[in-house]
Order: sequence, then C-alpha cells, then structure tokens
Amino acid sequence: MRDIAAAADISPGNLYNYFKGKGELLFFCQDSSLDRMLVSLEKSRRSRASATEKLVSIIESHLRCVLDEVEGSAAHLFANGLPARLHEQIAGKRDRYERGIRNLIAAGVQSGEFAPCEPALVARAILGASNWSVRWFNPEGRLTAGEVASEFARYLVRGLSAKAEPSSVGRRKRSGKAAPR
Amino acid sequence: MRDIAAAADISPGNLYNYFKGKGELLFFCQDSSLDRMLVSLEKSRRSRASATEKLVSIIESHLRCVLDEVEGSAAHLFANGLPARLHEQIAGKRDRYERGIRNLIAAGVQSGEFAPCEPALVARAILGASNWSVRWFNPEGRLTAGEVASEFARYLVRGLSAKAEPSSVGRRKRSGKAAPR
Repeated sequence: MRDIAAAADISPGNLYNYFKGKGELLFFCQDSSLDRMLVSLEKSRRSRASATEKLVSIIESHLRCVLDEVEGSAAHLFANGLPARLHEQIAGKRDRYERGIRNLIAAGVQSGEFAPCEPALVARAILGASNWSVRWFNPEGRLTAGEVASEFARYLVRGLSAKAEPSSVGRRKRSGKAAPR
Repeated sequence: MRDIAAAADISPGNLYNYFKGKGELLFFCQDSSLDRMLVSLEKSRRSRASATEKLVSIIESHLRCVLDEVEGSAAHLFANGLPARLHEQIAGKRDRYERGIRNLIAAGVQSGEFAPCEPALVARAILGASNWSVRWFNPEGRLTAGEVASEFARYLVRGLSAKAEPSSVGRRKRSGKAAPR
C-alpha cells in the first residue's frame, strides 16, 4: 500500500480520501502505467523515425515504466484482482497498446525494413519478455532499469531486422540433428 | 486438479494415493516439465549443431512443453504455492536451466556466431517471452503450439545473429527524435 501511495505521489494517510479501496488503488496504478505506454506509442507513431527506432523507443519506455517509474504498474500482470468494470477498462487499453505495437511491426514488414514474420506473435514475444522482467529485476543489482531497457530493446528489435541472415535461422527449422558446423 | 491428473497420466480418483496434497501435485508437474527442459538442454549441448540450431531446438522444446505437453507445467510461473522444501528443489532446477541457456549464448558470442550481447539478459528475455505465452495462448486458436514454438524460436534466435545489421539498432540508442528515413 505504501508503494502504491509513493507511485501515485500521494501520502499514505490521504490515500483513502481519494480511493475507496484496494481495487481502485490497483486500477489507478495500472491505468497510469498504461497511459504512459500509450503516450509513448503515440509519440513514436507520429515521429518520422524508422520502424526500428520507433520500436526501440517504445520497448525502452515500456521497461522504464514497469521497472522504474510506476512502482505498482506491473501489478496487473500477475493479479486479476480488479472488479469486472475496472478490469474491462484496463483490458481495453492493454489491447489497444498491443494492437499499436503489432501494427507498427506489420508496417515495418510491409516497408521491407523488417523481415517477414507474424506481427501478432512477435508483438507478444516482445511484451512477454518485457513484462516478465518485473519477476527478476533487482533495483539493487548490477544493471539499472535504463540499462536493461536499452539492452532488451536492442536485442528484441534486432530479431526483426530485414538485414539479419535468414538462412541460418530458417523457417520451420527442426533442429538437434542439424548439420555440424 | 483434473488437468494435473491428465498431465501426470494418472486417473483423478487415484491421485491421492500418490500425492499427499496440492503442494506435492504442483511439485510433480513443475518438476516433470523442468526435467524435460533440462533433457532438451543437455541433448542440444551434446549435439554437434551450431549455437543457432541448439538454441532454436531448446526454445521450441520449451514452448511445446509449456503450451502443449505438460498441462500443469507453467503453474509454477505464476504461483508461489509450494512448500519451502519443494520450492527450493524447483528453484535449483530452474536456475540450472537458465544458466545452461546463458552459457550457450555466451559460447555463441565467443565463437562469433552470435553478436556481442549480455547473455544473462538475453537468456531472461527468451525465457520471459516463452513463459509469458501461457498467458495468451489459446489451444483452439489459429496457430498450434508447434507453430507458435517455431515462430518464437526463429524470431528470438534471429536477434542474436552476428549477421544482423548492427548499425540500425545501435547500442545505447536513444530514440524518438531519430533521423528521418
């Protein structure tokens, strides 16, 4: 509860003046973080950057948000604690955000900047890798949230680059018994 | 409980003859899936395949395991329901598995097959993307577990390829205001 108060910039004592209970508090944190993510998505969409640069920016913002900026922002990823009405609002925003990322990937594929892929699956891989980070990230650890964000963005967008060598990571590859190097 | 019985190939009626309670049941499923993952890791490690092919094979096995083969295998990813003693055993296997993937990535970087990266972070991105799939995968959906596994493996390993063009996804890139295409 204290974490949520800190993330919301509200003193714990005043918290119950603003929110009826835990459900509303949880909603506020989730909603704030999704708003930040949607702002970052929209900012990238409107920019004249390449698809690569847009996606790097979105992934970095996403990770900074869940690891650093909004402490309760990842709560919704592991809890279904919201009342149905509030849950629906969150799910709507979350779907809009995911759709935006999928469309950005599809546009990059269409322009030839990204390699052919299933944009819906790649979007989910990116979101899964990013969201999962709250399970293992340690703020006292060797790397800052910003460093994790940079490295993740770099790796996750690299997998889309049309300039990667496709032959060595072929479609429908069945491995284990592959040719020796 | 019925799912777990099915995954364990034991009739629900007999289940309590074998397990004292839910904790042991959960442990059995988690332990079985981790054993499968460790077998797949070991098989790849011993093969003469390239690092790319080894990693593709491991990711595909991981996804088939959590999405298809062992129905309760992902339970541990979202629940801390195990008694401390059993949790410790699972955590030990999970860490061994993660370490194996990290070492495989590091070896690929060292041989020049993979691009320079932080192997520990990339391993976590791969595991996060893969584990998160149990949150959205729908067995009745358009793609089978095997198809998701192939596409994920292809994308996730592609991000490591030393042949990808590094200049467009530079280290420490700060984006949003990047140069127009």
